[in-house]
Amino acid sequence: MKLKYTIAAVAAAFCFTATPSAGAVEVDVASTFPKDMLFLGDGLKQFAKAVDEISKGDIKIKIHGAGDLVPALEVLNAVSSGAVSGGYDWVGYWGGTIPVANLVGALPFGPTPEVLAEWIWEGGGMQIIQKAYDAHNVKFLPCVVVPAEPAGWFNKEIKSVADLQGLKMRIGGLAGRALTKVGVSPQMIPGGEVFVSLERGRIDAAEFSLPAIDESIQLQKAGKYYYFPGWHQPSSINSVTFNKKVWDGFTDLQKNQITTACRSSFLWTLTNGVPEQLATLKRMEKGGTTIKRLPDEVLAALRKATNEVIEEERKRDPLFDEAYGSLSAYIEGADRWKALQSLK
Amino acid sequence: MKLKYTIAAVAAAFCFTATPSAGAVEVDVASTFPKDMLFLGDGLKQFAKAVDEISKGDIKIKIHGAGDLVPALEVLNAVSSGAVSGGYDWVGYWGGTIPVANLVGALPFGPTPEVLAEWIWEGGGMQIIQKAYDAHNVKFLPCVVVPAEPAGWFNKEIKSVADLQGLKMRIGGLAGRALTKVGVSPQMIPGGEVFVSLERGRIDAAEFSLPAIDESIQLQKAGKYYYFPGWHQPSSINSVTFNKKVWDGFTDLQKNQITTACRSSFLWTLTNGVPEQLATLKRMEKGGTTIKRLPDEVLAALRKATNEVIEEERKRDPLFDEAYGSLSAYIEGADRWKALQSLK
Repeated sequence: MKLKYTIAAVAAAFCFTATPSAGAVEVDVASTFPKDMLFLGDGLKQFAKAVDEISKGDIKIKIHGAGDLVPALEVLNAVSSGAVSGGYDWVGYWGGTIPVANLVGALPFGPTPEVLAEWIWEGGGMQIIQKAYDAHNVKFLPCVVVPAEPAGWFNKEIKSVADLQGLKMRIGGLAGRALTKVGVSPQMIPGGEVFVSLERGRIDAAEFSLPAIDESIQLQKAGKYYYFPGWHQPSSINSVTFNKKVWDGFTDLQKNQITTACRSSFLWTLTNGVPEQLATLKRMEKGGTTIKRLPDEVLAALRKATNEVIEEERKRDPLFDEAYGSLSAYIEGADRWKALQSLK
Repeated sequence: MKLKYTIAAVAAAFCFTATPSAGAVEVDVASTFPKDMLFLGDGLKQFAKAVDEISKGDIKIKIHGAGDLVPALEVLNAVSSGAVSGGYDWVGYWGGTIPVANLVGALPFGPTPEVLAEWIWEGGGMQIIQKAYDAHNVKFLPCVVVPAEPAGWFNKEIKSVADLQGLKMRIGGLAGRALTKVGVSPQMIPGGEVFVSLERGRIDAAEFSLPAIDESIQLQKAGKYYYFPGWHQPSSINSVTFNKKVWDGFTDLQKNQITTACRSSFLWTLTNGVPEQLATLKRMEKGGTTIKRLPDEVLAALRKATNEVIEEERKRDPLFDEAYGSLSAYIEGADRWKALQSLK
């Protein structure tokens, strides 16, 4: 046996019961999601659990659900000012303040989760995004990746671009802006009101989240057609953020433990997301939901409109432009690799 | 500021200089690869670094390159007997002893790295494989995933199945067995001799590894055509293994730190592998390498031959059969999701 034990006997005698250790910290994290929300909430729990497990309980992440400490859409401001030490969010919420957040929040016709993962962790993405967050005094950690969301629920069949004309749809971000170019009226409605709005006919269509999450708020009882693909959000990132002063106050050990736990929860979301969606789709189909793909003509029109919106955004913000250029070059390379390696 | 410090003052006074702590361990890990091998060796280094960083140096992974402690192909036996505490390997090396190892080592026409990651971490794969390893007294941890390898180097153009007839090719595993069914004579030649064998014409074709690794042993100077796709190895796992007694001797904290570090290195290999391959291919093309795809007819023949080999293997080993059934069902679901979400 080659296992060696290095025993610091004196220290051991005194340290044996010292749990938590000197320097143990508890960090409040305010979430933009309800604490127990399926998958999206679970991603943060996986992160907090991993931090706890690998730090011997020396770092406790105290999770606060949406609204508990600050309103959901105030999380970034609160972390930026130091009112709260940490945050957890769908990055896309900050697209108005930080344009590059749109890129990892929901880039229409953007990368798959795998390619986004490559770019953000190893392709230079993290560094560009951090530059944008530096201005807000916030450390950015991409700890959750979300699979493509379906295009959404529609209460009439979409056979052509003309069928989009005049639709009121719950959707936001760059995709919402693209939809206005093809005649849709996008509306931002809080999660808690989406079901009622669609069911009562106040809106004609709605996108919310993944099938399993949509099912948890009963959208299959309010919408008839469930359309794919998720052109508006082929992948997206939820981030854990820390106020810069809090982050800088961590020891190297704590920073390493937090970053490694973040990577572990990222892998969890990357590997855990899809199977549950498939099971959900089968249940929905049994319950009467019609699952369809948007016609190619409609996707082509949406792609054209998206390209216009992206060009506008590139002119508006230099960091968005830099990030988009970097991501596009990355995707081009990844596409070549996929084409070469495709087995079909 | 909501950051709270819980200070155990008495313990702190005595523990301050205690590095490494009581219970610190150093674990020897014998690799089947040269210690400094590009990517394959780096994956293990990433794991060892993460373990060190998050354990405050309390767990040291001491890496031994191929042949330093035991011959490369003796690593599993050495870990199984306890002669060495830990191992690091391409899982496919053990396909003769543990049939299910072929499935995660290199399953021809198998899953992409992303889908293999989903199945192994969250789709039940790990549990089935561990069942097979239990019989050998070994704990199995999938800490590295390798992108698809190219189909290999050929010194003549492959235009049809007839062109494969009589070729001597360096390749092993299930793919080698499939190739015999279409007239190829597969040969297992150690890494260090592949270049010379191909360059001197002792063999007509060879697969070794990823483009960047193939380049590092100069295969572009011995082979003319570089063929894709990597039908024989669309994804593969390198594992870190521990003798069961060693693993069981770890505390829960140590087990958590090792597992989380393993997840972190897995994410590194999942996100780091592709960009370098693309840059390498560009360099090779400039140097005169012709990059081609195998004709559809050839791929169809290889797929048919592969299916026969897999059926033989399923009859030979119940665990291979169980794992193959589980993985196939998983892939079927993942394919439906991909088709629904495809943007093209």
